[in-house]
Amino acid sequence: MVSTPSISNLPATIAWENDGLSILDQTRLPHETVVEKLTTAEEVWRAIHELRVRGAPAIGVAAAYGLCVAMRASLHLTIAEFRAHLAKQAAYLDSARPTAVNLSWSLRRMLQAAQASPASETASLLRVLIDEAVAIHDEDRALCEGIGEHGLPLITEGCGVLTHCNAGALATTGLGTATAPIYMAHAAGTKFRVYADETRPLLQGARLTAYELQQAGVDVTLITDSMAASLMARGLVDVVIVGTDRVAANGDFANKIGTLALAIVSRHFDIPFYVACPSSTLDLHTATGDAIVIEQRRDDEVTHLYGQRIAPANMKVSNPAFDVTPHELVTGFITERGIVKAPFARNLATLFAMEGDAA
Amino acid sequence: MVSTPSISNLPATIAWENDGLSILDQTRLPHETVVEKLTTAEEVWRAIHELRVRGAPAIGVAAAYGLCVAMRASLHLTIAEFRAHLAKQAAYLDSARPTAVNLSWSLRRMLQAAQASPASETASLLRVLIDEAVAIHDEDRALCEGIGEHGLPLITEGCGVLTHCNAGALATTGLGTATAPIYMAHAAGTKFRVYADETRPLLQGARLTAYELQQAGVDVTLITDSMAASLMARGLVDVVIVGTDRVAANGDFANKIGTLALAIVSRHFDIPFYVACPSSTLDLHTATGDAIVIEQRRDDEVTHLYGQRIAPANMKVSNPAFDVTPHELVTGFITERGIVKAPFARNLATLFAMEGDAA
Repeated sequence: MVSTPSISNLPATIAWENDGLSILDQTRLPHETVVEKLTTAEEVWRAIHELRVRGAPAIGVAAAYGLCVAMRASLHLTIAEFRAHLAKQAAYLDSARPTAVNLSWSLRRMLQAAQASPASETASLLRVLIDEAVAIHDEDRALCEGIGEHGLPLITEGCGVLTHCNAGALATTGLGTATAPIYMAHAAGTKFRVYADETRPLLQGARLTAYELQQAGVDVTLITDSMAASLMARGLVDVVIVGTDRVAANGDFANKIGTLALAIVSRHFDIPFYVACPSSTLDLHTATGDAIVIEQRRDDEVTHLYGQRIAPANMKVSNPAFDVTPHELVTGFITERGIVKAPFARNLATLFAMEGDAA
Repeated sequence: MVSTPSISNLPATIAWENDGLSILDQTRLPHETVVEKLTTAEEVWRAIHELRVRGAPAIGVAAAYGLCVAMRASLHLTIAEFRAHLAKQAAYLDSARPTAVNLSWSLRRMLQAAQASPASETASLLRVLIDEAVAIHDEDRALCEGIGEHGLPLITEGCGVLTHCNAGALATTGLGTATAPIYMAHAAGTKFRVYADETRPLLQGARLTAYELQQAGVDVTLITDSMAASLMARGLVDVVIVGTDRVAANGDFANKIGTLALAIVSRHFDIPFYVACPSSTLDLHTATGDAIVIEQRRDDEVTHLYGQRIAPANMKVSNPAFDVTPHELVTGFITERGIVKAPFARNLATLFAMEGDAA
């Protein structure tokens, strides 16, 4: 268990207590703070699919515990049946979201732990799974901590930090990724400003990032996505830190729609653009960003907000959930082992290749 | 009267029939199509103040007719009283939106027409005012038509056009400014796609541009502001056309927040970026964009939508209504006299300096 500074009075993103899984329903923030128990594989699948639990690291942890929840109902099977069902349930949970690399990474790791176990009884194999999920959970908190420590020097007295979407504590089970340096600088007493893009269409920046930073007492200002360039032109932004859902071997990375524009605009104004990147997000088997599949989401995310129609009826909509930013626009990746600078292909491989190969 | 192609089955933004003024209430679009008769100076003032009629050109036309409506109730006065009251009513209407340039421009022009008239009876002076308002109205349609003709060659078979906010028919009394080439290309049978940015915070792109193009049968796709770069990266956008609220003598221009980012991203992808600019928007007395004051609007435009809170309570907000795009990022200004390319200072002055000095 890693000790992280207590960052706010919000409930934990994901909790595992008495072998039960509960999540903080992020679709209802900031209006309502609802903790939801998930007791079946279907409930876990829906919670991930409907973004009630979201953020690549948190999804990984939720899926790991979710697999434990799913298998708990199958203790009566033979060990061979149990193992076969385990593979099926992992594949089922893996189908909840297409782009998040942590989801398959975490489930693959759970399956490997089961395969490596000689357990001949279902109950003891379930215990192996739970132990592995707890390990994944602990590692997530440690990753956040490491990113926070390495990113801390980027946030200096009086500076302005811009972030997009929510790569925050709510997207992880610790300090967040992009927000980890922010929370650490705040805890260290540094005075600085944060600008949070609202992040249409689902407003994770407004609903989650602005909220969690506000709750933690950080000086945060909410803007619409279209305002970042205007702030930069006025010299208000000194560094941009975003999260990522997947980093390819060459440093191209996928993140919430709007990140690409932010990277281009940052380059235009010569503002350092950093990507907070836990090693779990690194996908050395994907050569470049071209190979990353972009999830297209439902039209009504754009045309409706809280059930209210905000666009004409029968409107044609494009709703890519992510975009891919080419590595040339990245100043550095803030990882738990240090900041990785260009040339990214070589430097990412050097720092992480051994685990990448082992995985 | 300029003949413009009928662009849709929407009612006219502003109509003057049987000496009566009516407007299409734009605050209720796209949910309800309500045409409202304005029969007193107070009703006209409120319609402008509450953005039921909006868009710089449309406001100018509404104010001109509004002054006629206001004076119609004063035909019983002596001619001297009538002229004195005219000045008062013009000042009153001018106070409806302090920042709208076309409002004072149009009312000043109405007063000048009255001053130039030797009319000794109130009925004949009212007729002078009505004729001048009709002239302003006709000129607005002609400006749109001219922009449409000159911008038409930019829209080619199979191309993708991106626009921001509403510089559309609804902002004018004709084909719009940025939309004029779109409507003309559509009328000419060209097949092409339009992408409309929703334009947070007030969603003029979603509520107005996407709506008016959809109603006209144009192939229009709604996106959030953050998606433009992603479409461009995928080769879906061949040309960007936006409107403007004010163009400085050097070609720097102010437009709805988000335009600057769009211009930077267009340059990154080598996509032509055009500004539809009726000569009435050109301000040769403002040297550069640095002199353009940016209006900061209310926080609740960002934190609320249709009365629903979409951000945490007590959130700090930045809400600049406009940004300034430097002329270096502009491919050309589409004016009613032709497309103006760099060097802008010289070429804008050459085309428009005489009227600028005369005004």
